[in-house]
Amino acid sequence: MSETNRAARSDGDEEQVSGAEVIAQALKTQEVEYMFGIVGIPVTEIAVAAQKMGIGYVGMRNEQAACYAASAIGYLTGRPGVCLVVSGPGLIHALGGMANANMNCWYTECCMPPPVSMAETSAICMAATVIRNAKKPLLIIGKGAAYAHAEEGIRKLVERCKLPFLPTPMGKGVIPDNHPNCVAAARSRALQFADVIVLFGARLNWILHFGLPPRYQPDVKFIQVDICAEELGNNVKPAVTLLGDINAVTKQLLEQFDKTPWQYPPESSWWKTLREKMKSNEATSKELASQKSLPMNYYTVFYHVQEQLPRDCFVVSEGANTMDIGRTVLQNYLPRHRLDAGTFGTMGVGLGFAIAAAILAKARNTGQRVICVEGDSAFGFSGMEVETICRYNLPIILLVVNNNGIYQGFDVDSWKEMLKFGDATAVAPPVCLLPNSHYEQVMTAFGGKGYFVQTPEELQKSLRESLADTTAPSLINIMIEPQATRKAQDFHWLTRSKI
Amino acid sequence: MSETNRAARSDGDEEQVSGAEVIAQALKTQEVEYMFGIVGIPVTEIAVAAQKMGIGYVGMRNEQAACYAASAIGYLTGRPGVCLVVSGPGLIHALGGMANANMNCWYTECCMPPPVSMAETSAICMAATVIRNAKKPLLIIGKGAAYAHAEEGIRKLVERCKLPFLPTPMGKGVIPDNHPNCVAAARSRALQFADVIVLFGARLNWILHFGLPPRYQPDVKFIQVDICAEELGNNVKPAVTLLGDINAVTKQLLEQFDKTPWQYPPESSWWKTLREKMKSNEATSKELASQKSLPMNYYTVFYHVQEQLPRDCFVVSEGANTMDIGRTVLQNYLPRHRLDAGTFGTMGVGLGFAIAAAILAKARNTGQRVICVEGDSAFGFSGMEVETICRYNLPIILLVVNNNGIYQGFDVDSWKEMLKFGDATAVAPPVCLLPNSHYEQVMTAFGGKGYFVQTPEELQKSLRESLADTTAPSLINIMIEPQATRKAQDFHWLTRSKI
Amino acid sequence: MSETNRAARSDGDEEQVSGAEVIAQALKTQEVEYMFGIVGIPVTEIAVAAQKMGIGYVGMRNEQAACYAASAIGYLTGRPGVCLVVSGPGLIHALGGMANANMNCWYTECCMPPPVSMAETSAICMAATVIRNAKKPLLIIGKGAAYAHAEEGIRKLVERCKLPFLPTPMGKGVIPDNHPNCVAAARSRALQFADVIVLFGARLNWILHFGLPPRYQPDVKFIQVDICAEELGNNVKPAVTLLGDINAVTKQLLEQFDKTPWQYPPESSWWKTLREKMKSNEATSKELASQKSLPMNYYTVFYHVQEQLPRDCFVVSEGANTMDIGRTVLQNYLPRHRLDAGTFGTMGVGLGFAIAAAILAKARNTGQRVICVEGDSAFGFSGMEVETICRYNLPIILLVVNNNGIYQGFDVDSWKEMLKFGDATAVAPPVCLLPNSHYEQVMTAFGGKGYFVQTPEELQKSLRESLADTTAPSLINIMIEPQATRKAQDFHWLTRSKI
Amino acid sequence: MSETNRAARSDGDEEQVSGAEVIAQALKTQEVEYMFGIVGIPVTEIAVAAQKMGIGYVGMRNEQAACYAASAIGYLTGRPGVCLVVSGPGLIHALGGMANANMNCWYTECCMPPPVSMAETSAICMAATVIRNAKKPLLIIGKGAAYAHAEEGIRKLVERCKLPFLPTPMGKGVIPDNHPNCVAAARSRALQFADVIVLFGARLNWILHFGLPPRYQPDVKFIQVDICAEELGNNVKPAVTLLGDINAVTKQLLEQFDKTPWQYPPESSWWKTLREKMKSNEATSKELASQKSLPMNYYTVFYHVQEQLPRDCFVVSEGANTMDIGRTVLQNYLPRHRLDAGTFGTMGVGLGFAIAAAILAKARNTGQRVICVEGDSAFGFSGMEVETICRYNLPIILLVVNNNGIYQGFDVDSWKEMLKFGDATAVAPPVCLLPNSHYEQVMTAFGGKGYFVQTPEELQKSLRESLADTTAPSLINIMIEPQATRKAQDFHWLTRSKI
Repeated sequence: MSETNRAARSDGDEEQVSGAEVIAQALKTQEVEYMFGIVGIPVTEIAVAAQKMGIGYVGMRNEQAACYAASAIGYLTGRPGVCLVVSGPGLIHALGGMANANMNCWYTECCMPPPVSMAETSAICMAATVIRNAKKPLLIIGKGAAYAHAEEGIRKLVERCKLPFLPTPMGKGVIPDNHPNCVAAARSRALQFADVIVLFGARLNWILHFGLPPRYQPDVKFIQVDICAEELGNNVKPAVTLLGDINAVTKQLLEQFDKTPWQYPPESSWWKTLREKMKSNEATSKELASQKSLPMNYYTVFYHVQEQLPRDCFVVSEGANTMDIGRTVLQNYLPRHRLDAGTFGTMGVGLGFAIAAAILAKARNTGQRVICVEGDSAFGFSGMEVETICRYNLPIILLVVNNNGIYQGFDVDSWKEMLKFGDATAVAPPVCLLPNSHYEQVMTAFGGKGYFVQTPEELQKSLRESLADTTAPSLINIMIEPQATRKAQDFHWLTRSKI
Repeated sequence: MSETNRAARSDGDEEQVSGAEVIAQALKTQEVEYMFGIVGIPVTEIAVAAQKMGIGYVGMRNEQAACYAASAIGYLTGRPGVCLVVSGPGLIHALGGMANANMNCWYTECCMPPPVSMAETSAICMAATVIRNAKKPLLIIGKGAAYAHAEEGIRKLVERCKLPFLPTPMGKGVIPDNHPNCVAAARSRALQFADVIVLFGARLNWILHFGLPPRYQPDVKFIQVDICAEELGNNVKPAVTLLGDINAVTKQLLEQFDKTPWQYPPESSWWKTLREKMKSNEATSKELASQKSLPMNYYTVFYHVQEQLPRDCFVVSEGANTMDIGRTVLQNYLPRHRLDAGTFGTMGVGLGFAIAAAILAKARNTGQRVICVEGDSAFGFSGMEVETICRYNLPIILLVVNNNGIYQGFDVDSWKEMLKFGDATAVAPPVCLLPNSHYEQVMTAFGGKGYFVQTPEELQKSLRESLADTTAPSLINIMIEPQATRKAQDFHWLTRSKI
Repeated sequence: MSETNRAARSDGDEEQVSGAEVIAQALKTQEVEYMFGIVGIPVTEIAVAAQKMGIGYVGMRNEQAACYAASAIGYLTGRPGVCLVVSGPGLIHALGGMANANMNCWYTECCMPPPVSMAETSAICMAATVIRNAKKPLLIIGKGAAYAHAEEGIRKLVERCKLPFLPTPMGKGVIPDNHPNCVAAARSRALQFADVIVLFGARLNWILHFGLPPRYQPDVKFIQVDICAEELGNNVKPAVTLLGDINAVTKQLLEQFDKTPWQYPPESSWWKTLREKMKSNEATSKELASQKSLPMNYYTVFYHVQEQLPRDCFVVSEGANTMDIGRTVLQNYLPRHRLDAGTFGTMGVGLGFAIAAAILAKARNTGQRVICVEGDSAFGFSGMEVETICRYNLPIILLVVNNNGIYQGFDVDSWKEMLKFGDATAVAPPVCLLPNSHYEQVMTAFGGKGYFVQTPEELQKSLRESLADTTAPSLINIMIEPQATRKAQDFHWLTRSKI
Repeated sequence: MSETNRAARSDGDEEQVSGAEVIAQALKTQEVEYMFGIVGIPVTEIAVAAQKMGIGYVGMRNEQAACYAASAIGYLTGRPGVCLVVSGPGLIHALGGMANANMNCWYTECCMPPPVSMAETSAICMAATVIRNAKKPLLIIGKGAAYAHAEEGIRKLVERCKLPFLPTPMGKGVIPDNHPNCVAAARSRALQFADVIVLFGARLNWILHFGLPPRYQPDVKFIQVDICAEELGNNVKPAVTLLGDINAVTKQLLEQFDKTPWQYPPESSWWKTLREKMKSNEATSKELASQKSLPMNYYTVFYHVQEQLPRDCFVVSEGANTMDIGRTVLQNYLPRHRLDAGTFGTMGVGLGFAIAAAILAKARNTGQRVICVEGDSAFGFSGMEVETICRYNLPIILLVVNNNGIYQGFDVDSWKEMLKFGDATAVAPPVCLLPNSHYEQVMTAFGGKGYFVQTPEELQKSLRESLADTTAPSLINIMIEPQATRKAQDFHWLTRSKI
């Protein structure tokens, strides 16, 4: 920084480098590409200075969303995302974003890419032996594998050893969801009966039921691959721990299986069990999806969306059932192309994440689309960012899956009937939102396209049109059965504790 | 609480009191009337239990706004407002609200009304003497006076002693703004030349320029009346400090002036100076307000609003120029009927505050209206709460004073012209928002009335209609000159540092 | 501070004011008299600059003790005490002191003396009425009354209305302990049967058994007099609360009883009950004190100390039984002359407190002595401060009441016997300390006088000599029965939870 | 823990497991060997329960020292040390210890030993290449190398490649200080001119002058070996970073040099420069050490101590000059046998560290001695722990190097002269302590041996006697020249900023 000052001063007596320029220069040096925020006195000058340096500035509508966007750009690019806020209330509004992700944020130090570490050779050998001796092996691919860019190695390992695998929500796409070895459709079964589970950058948190019975065998052996020593041995005592860069460790494992090739028998009873369960689960889903009754149910909606989903799109999602069911139906084919409410279950992240992904796709000119699948309650947390989307003309497709409530709601007639019994503050169930809200008008208010759809045909048509228009955003407000829920779960009581 | 349990248990063996009911009962005991929040597992049951106990539940769209609403209800009713959020991200989103106001919030202890304390008798005598000897006295009436319900006493003091007074933003209405002794229209002059200033629950913060020159005389004598000892002597060394309940202290002062009656001469040169300055300032404002050019300027807009403003309405406001200029034109006639972004300058508070006020007016059946005056940027922070307004059918009138930006913006043509030079992230000034955004459609999306107004006539008509319909909300999107600013200030550099 | 700078600069071009001098000047302006601390780079210069300004610097041996000393000087003088520490470990060591007292410490803002507030007149009337109607009234005089310098008023109230009173530990001396209306010797009885209790700056914390049954009547009426609104209504719902400066409120009460004089009948059965209980308790104590067996017990020790205690001395104390029993026997005759481990039960405060009191007595040339009564375990927390005492030649008399342990210990023979069974880490009870430790040598090591006493006669003689020498410190190491405890309590289980 | 409960319960209906026992059992499961603390209600029972489980309990005199002892036992054994304190003040007193070391303390989770990670193969190659190409190589061996038990590998590397090395304070002994390749005596020169520096678990903090000019070449290449990614690249941009277990990475480097053997020429000009500088520095030190004048200087003292120092002893040290100069003279021959005030420069750690080391040596029956070298000011922070030493009869030898002050002090005559000018609080330099304090009496007070020494002969004799008595502690109070300082430094201004 001192060099910058010196250079500037040598140009002439009058020229001065402002604090804002110094900050912008420092960010540029850290290869920051984008800054998200809301200006105000005295940070407006920083945004202007950043633009002059070639850093893109994206003005948002609430610091919450700005911070979520900045964290997403960090995840997608591996470079720090910056969130610009005023002190006081602006900073406090941004706390949600900072808590949600260990993002690299304003006032945060940036650093050079960390060096790569590998696992101990003896531990690699032991892990390979445990895998070879497994009767019912399973790989679980987590967000950490995506972040480590370990997709090539893990795919080779899966294919060479013919192992079944399961992605976590943000591990989806490290290997394409439609890979024949993906057993996501038999998730509960796979977890419950596996005898050896290899975790690639996946934590045994509530999403994975903490690795505990009855969702797992009491004597299941875990092999943990992680960059973070503090994550190892959480909740369970692993059989083998491989501490190191997930990509590097995967390559070490591959070398091991190169020396002494081995593959898990494709005709084993374990594979048979998994395939049968997948088949039956897929049949149930398809059955639900094909129901003709109106309003539509979740499965019908997502099957139609999946049919038109471009293979290279980004999928962003948040909500309760919308996110959970959508994840089982919507496929990811590329790593780091799914962003959702994550471990923390934070509502309000969707639009910020979508904006970050769309800004990136536009800047890199990849033509990739961003599909943002929102529950109607989730959309309310940051719906005003639609103006940001329109202002930057980002061709995001927002799907609001609308059941008139949180978890569930009322149809219009029930709502009106209810109001006869008293004031809404007294009689409306706390989960209810206004029935038949026209969220699509929040999009048309700012010049984007809006669709209010009630039938599969309307859904198909609106999706087709939205995908065809590569220059403008659209919002499809999809009315579903207000009392619709997911299909029966084997562990309903556990699932409910999700959010 | 144990009594509740015991009572419930005596009803029968099987009957159990849930934790949610215990919490709801405890809140009821504290005379909580309303709970604002967003439900989720596991707090939904608490909301339901509260409704059963007769506590009104208002479901909001973001914890930020919920918390602002809860703090406003606390200010308006003097009883704790409750904000219900889920742990983790919900709690973090609510921090803004908690920081913004020392509200009584979820997990917060409640307590009995505090006892009243009075100022020392000798200090009262000294204060009276200082006032009697003042050459250029001034009273400043702050939010603390409103909170202490000191309106009757302060009005008597003003009228009996014939003293000029000035309200702070949320002190407006303690005495009606149109009272002949109100010198708000000569605010800068009054502050700058007063030799004795009595502060009733008003802090010498940035809003009052810290009590320092050049905005004040270097030897001005401050008399501070406050309930909070920690506030006394901040920034300046007061001549007299009166520690105690503001209402009680005011009465002590009145008794003093009852014993030895005194009044400040209405024909003094100080009164003359103030009246002249008020006259000239009001003329300038009126001149600005009467400009016929389009788009309208701030003064034109607010003069038309003021003409139709019901005397008993609540005025809520947030924004930069919108709030600052609006405050000078829009009159308050009742105490505790103005709520704005306050000392902390927090954006995003407006809709939560408006909802709280409207819920109260509805519950008390007063027929009072809530007018919520928002800058366009400010509206973006919590605009989705319009759905909440419509769901509870609250007849709030939202005015969005729209200059296409933060502080200022571009008109449509300039915006389009600018985009020829590059991507918006690179070339759009960080203060710019999308020009001609149809914020009124965010209202129509949920069934409320929306108006897009560009002329004084359209503004008058839309206001008239909105006020006439006492059953439904409306949003009037008022387009003003994108580069419009306030009239010239004597201390422009200080004013800029406001937010 | 800017004036200081300006003044200094006008003296000449070359003269510069260092940061250390600016800090010292600022402290001087706040009327700081003493600074306690430990120097190190870079704060040595601040200590030197303070000395130049006339602020006394007292170098201590551990930041813990420095901070306790600074807090005591604040309590005794009403002006901020300053604690000077280096950053990092020095600051962390000082945290104990900062937590122990809301002292005004390094980096803390100082302020002018707060204005005086009074209670509402109607509340005063109500309080007087409640007192007049009391059948079994009791006043409790707390540390707050001492801090408010309310001694004159409270004494008048006690004597005019002939009411029984009880001091809290640091409220001792507001009225002399030997005042005929003091019912400390019947403490439990007084608390348990009183029907009206007036609290003057005393909190209903564990020391006062939280104001709850069985230590109090379930329907006892509390009248709380306090400067701090947050303290009112803690734990119990008071009948009347008088918010204001304790001295001012006491005068308001006195005026009330001046208008309509009233006194509580000295021949009431309540007074009779209390006097009888006092008599019987005092007899029991005297019986214990007169036991001739050796080693001595606590009562024997304290009775001999009390006999020689100068009426105007400061009594500092810490420990478990040593502090508790000592408090019942050692009398205070002046307000603010007792300092002990307080509400928080902090060990390690004694020597710092004693140093502060002695520094003050020396500076004011009052000839007052400081008697510091320490348990042997308590002395270990900051015993090295004896060097500080000797360095500044402070004539403090340290009494270490030594039972070879925490709560209790072993005699030498038992200790040796025990060690036959294994290593001390394995077999020594955790409460044991080394038997017959010669703590008095810690004093002689630095040139003070040391006494190892085992009999009443030795104790009397050593005390006499110590009091006679007004120029040097001494430490009397008093060996007592290692298993000695207090006399039987009515509520033993409650008493045990004290520390 | 539930198994424990179940087992216990099956023994009989009446038997109950207390909370204290459950805690003690959990600590035992974590292989805790020792607990340090101060008991009080309600933690006494935990100490007793721990002893029953076979965990040694060491009762200390101040929680500060207890926490330092617990952290040292953790460093020495690799297993968690436990510090037992009461809540409130006890916990606050312990904060110093917790801040001083990332120790495993009470309420802290314990975990299995972390897996070993290795550096990336390519990075190892690159590091080897950089080392091979170095003109002026230097290894720096830090505390991390000691903690990783990397002594064998690093010694092989040094000897095989014939590289000069330098230990950091707590890296001393990983390779014996008297190893011919140790260039500690030419420390400043070695740092200043090296062109390649390999850091083994050493941080570029103030002790290593942040790795910056003028203490280093501007273009020096750093190779960092560390387990902690966050440490890499701090302050400087390293040429190569090797992330992984330091022992494992060292072995990887050794394998590299096994494949292609290489050694740095012992006759290089770099080695010649270093050897010459070492010779001249050693001559200067010897010159200082041999001065016959009295009082002694630091070098005389330490040379005599070094002569008698057992090769396998633990050296503990704290102070300013005492620690800095002592470190250059006193030799370590074994890894993890030096404990000092460390990076944080914390005063008060010495006695706790010494107690921990002595407890360990006694338990393992190694006959190793602990030599604790204290400055006089440093000793004052926790001198009362001498009672703990005596109680557990730990044969620690305490050396108090006494210059009557912090950094420097006054002799007795100067002190008396000074007091003629005013009160000590006004005139005594803040660095002064009481002259000729007999710290050795703090030892004799508790039955240990004490020596007051003023000449080399007295020092030799007292040391000889102390070492000969393997069953009892002793304290040697060594009077040195009060104004003695270290020999001239090349970078005096930098050195001053040390503490």
